Amino acid sequence: MDTPTYAKGLEGVIAAESKICKIDGEQGKLYYYGHPLAELAASCTFEEVTYLLLYGKLPTTDELNAFSARMRAGRALSEPVLQMIREFPADSHPMELLQSVISYLSGYVEHKIHHSPHCNCRDTLHQVAQVTSVIAAYHRMQNGEAYVPPRDDLSHGANFLYMLRGEEPDDREGKIMDKCFVIHAEHSFNASTFTARVVASTMSTCYSSISAAIGALYGSLHGGANERVMQMVDQIGSTEKVKEFVEKKLERKEKVMGMGHRVYRAKDPRAVVMEAFLDEMSDKTGNRTYYDILKGVETTFRAKMEVKGKPIYPNVDFFSGAVYRLLGIPRALYTPIFAAARAAGWLAHILEQREDNRIFRPRALYVGEVDLPVPPRAQR
Amino acid sequence: MDTPTYAKGLEGVIAAESKICKIDGEQGKLYYYGHPLAELAASCTFEEVTYLLLYGKLPTTDELNAFSARMRAGRALSEPVLQMIREFPADSHPMELLQSVISYLSGYVEHKIHHSPHCNCRDTLHQVAQVTSVIAAYHRMQNGEAYVPPRDDLSHGANFLYMLRGEEPDDREGKIMDKCFVIHAEHSFNASTFTARVVASTMSTCYSSISAAIGALYGSLHGGANERVMQMVDQIGSTEKVKEFVEKKLERKEKVMGMGHRVYRAKDPRAVVMEAFLDEMSDKTGNRTYYDILKGVETTFRAKMEVKGKPIYPNVDFFSGAVYRLLGIPRALYTPIFAAARAAGWLAHILEQREDNRIFRPRALYVGEVDLPVPPRAQR
Repeated sequence: MDTPTYAKGLEGVIAAESKICKIDGEQGKLYYYGHPLAELAASCTFEEVTYLLLYGKLPTTDELNAFSARMRAGRALSEPVLQMIREFPADSHPMELLQSVISYLSGYVEHKIHHSPHCNCRDTLHQVAQVTSVIAAYHRMQNGEAYVPPRDDLSHGANFLYMLRGEEPDDREGKIMDKCFVIHAEHSFNASTFTARVVASTMSTCYSSISAAIGALYGSLHGGANERVMQMVDQIGSTEKVKEFVEKKLERKEKVMGMGHRVYRAKDPRAVVMEAFLDEMSDKTGNRTYYDILKGVETTFRAKMEVKGKPIYPNVDFFSGAVYRLLGIPRALYTPIFAAARAAGWLAHILEQREDNRIFRPRALYVGEVDLPVPPRAQR
Repeated sequence: MDTPTYAKGLEGVIAAESKICKIDGEQGKLYYYGHPLAELAASCTFEEVTYLLLYGKLPTTDELNAFSARMRAGRALSEPVLQMIREFPADSHPMELLQSVISYLSGYVEHKIHHSPHCNCRDTLHQVAQVTSVIAAYHRMQNGEAYVPPRDDLSHGANFLYMLRGEEPDDREGKIMDKCFVIHAEHSFNASTFTARVVASTMSTCYSSISAAIGALYGSLHGGANERVMQMVDQIGSTEKVKEFVEKKLERKEKVMGMGHRVYRAKDPRAVVMEAFLDEMSDKTGNRTYYDILKGVETTFRAKMEVKGKPIYPNVDFFSGAVYRLLGIPRALYTPIFAAARAAGWLAHILEQREDNRIFRPRALYVGEVDLPVPPRAQR
């Protein structure tokens, strides 16, 4: 037998072929099924992009209308799910609730053909449509407010804000929220998407696979960076304090949250779009503080790093938290919102995995002992 | 950059080092932390083996008493969880419910130190202790019966049968059930254990990680083989029909369920123990039909395969379903019982993963297109 490969964290190991997403880190470009993200974000809705991810092509007007109608029909939460949300302990994290609900949902749909890429999850779409509904219901119930049932005349983003606030957002807010979902919908393999594919490779259901992926995204090394960016912004407090903050960070060799990315050597294309949204929302709300602090951090940090010959750029998390805050969304919901968007990408990967499947079964390198005795308890 | 490795399903790729489990496929031996399974099954309880898996050593009497008391204290289900079980749709699979409940449980414990191998999940043990309680409660509620609260004077196995039946099992039944959990507690890397480690590698919680692993075990390529063995037994119906059944299977080049194993080239050591339990339960219940049919299948199939120079042996799933049936357990619960046992192994792998962690982030081999246009909808 050949000596097997061992790469910790499977770094550099190819786990599967995929047509869904390409990240061109050198050029700072991101593609969903070959279409540049910047163009998709400029002209497509989240439902349109979800269609693209699930069917591999952009929909015609008729296809999109039919698809949107199906996805919107899946937004409403059933009473048992509302009960789970209502009873979930106050101090706990909504990601755990979300993971639980998505798996529970599988009890409510017919998915007998889950062993096939032609699974009817493409039709019911609950596990994409309901994530935002769960987040909104959780938020309201935590604040002692009633569940707001969804509306089917609003985009995915606008409906989310509506269910969160209990009143319809204005047109731009709805559009920006919807585009935030577009931007986060897919990003090739990472721990959560890989988790979705591993679970799918056993021919488990879409629900089980997406629920598992939510569990992975909950990890502190994966989701949650945008929460920490906003903690940093709050800590800095005002633009005058940016320089001192960045210098101290550099002195202590600490990371500046939201700056730099494992893959991108140019500006993260999602950050470009997010920055424009933050600029717009800052004008709209008359609150430019977050924008000014963040741009200050970016400029100062980049200048210092360029002196060292290390060009470094903001990633998507750098601006997204501030956009959410100006949309009135509390920090605990940032990672759940990431999950709500990424559910589309996870489902796409689950369907792709099943098309040419082999169950993921890597090996362990055993470094323990053998043939130890099992002495009677009294002699241990 | 070196050419990266690509092995479909990560076959032959080492994903991590581990001290937890060694499978010696050639010798037909299995070790938990260096101790042979056959000896553990002969002299240890499931709680004792769970201690071994979580602490890496066999407990003294005092350690075991303290550990068992903690684990038994975690058996009772809370009202919101009972409500989830009660409301779960009748035709759905209990694995989805189990996946959901385990994630939901995380809301009920203090796990702020989940970023460390010294996580307090080792203390609360809910995600191991409660799995059997959920299965038993689900079974009773599906049959219109009331939840039976756990007893803390019974072993893990005996308490499970008690909660399932509403009456205490006799001593041997309780012991056999407990040993079934011992036998299924751990089996090195496979899709579900690997899932648990991938999720844990993001520094998510034990609950999220085990919930995800349950999702993987639910897949038709992973758990569920013992269900299909019993379907086969029912199809055969009587010992006289074994020969014809096996011959037809061979003619059609179909698999005989429960025979052969990817890793073992000798008899699966778990099957040896299970066969003895089935023999005992057959005598005890006065029903030797399942045993006789299964032994008939084994003998006939092995003889036919040996002629072809392919020695083939029964695996653990070959006898376990029949043991469960003679214990009065319906088929839908077989895979959940597997999860109840394996929860101990999953937790061990989660804790080990965190001790020397790197997040699992393999690469995709992109085989799609780039720079496709995004035409207006009317022009698609």
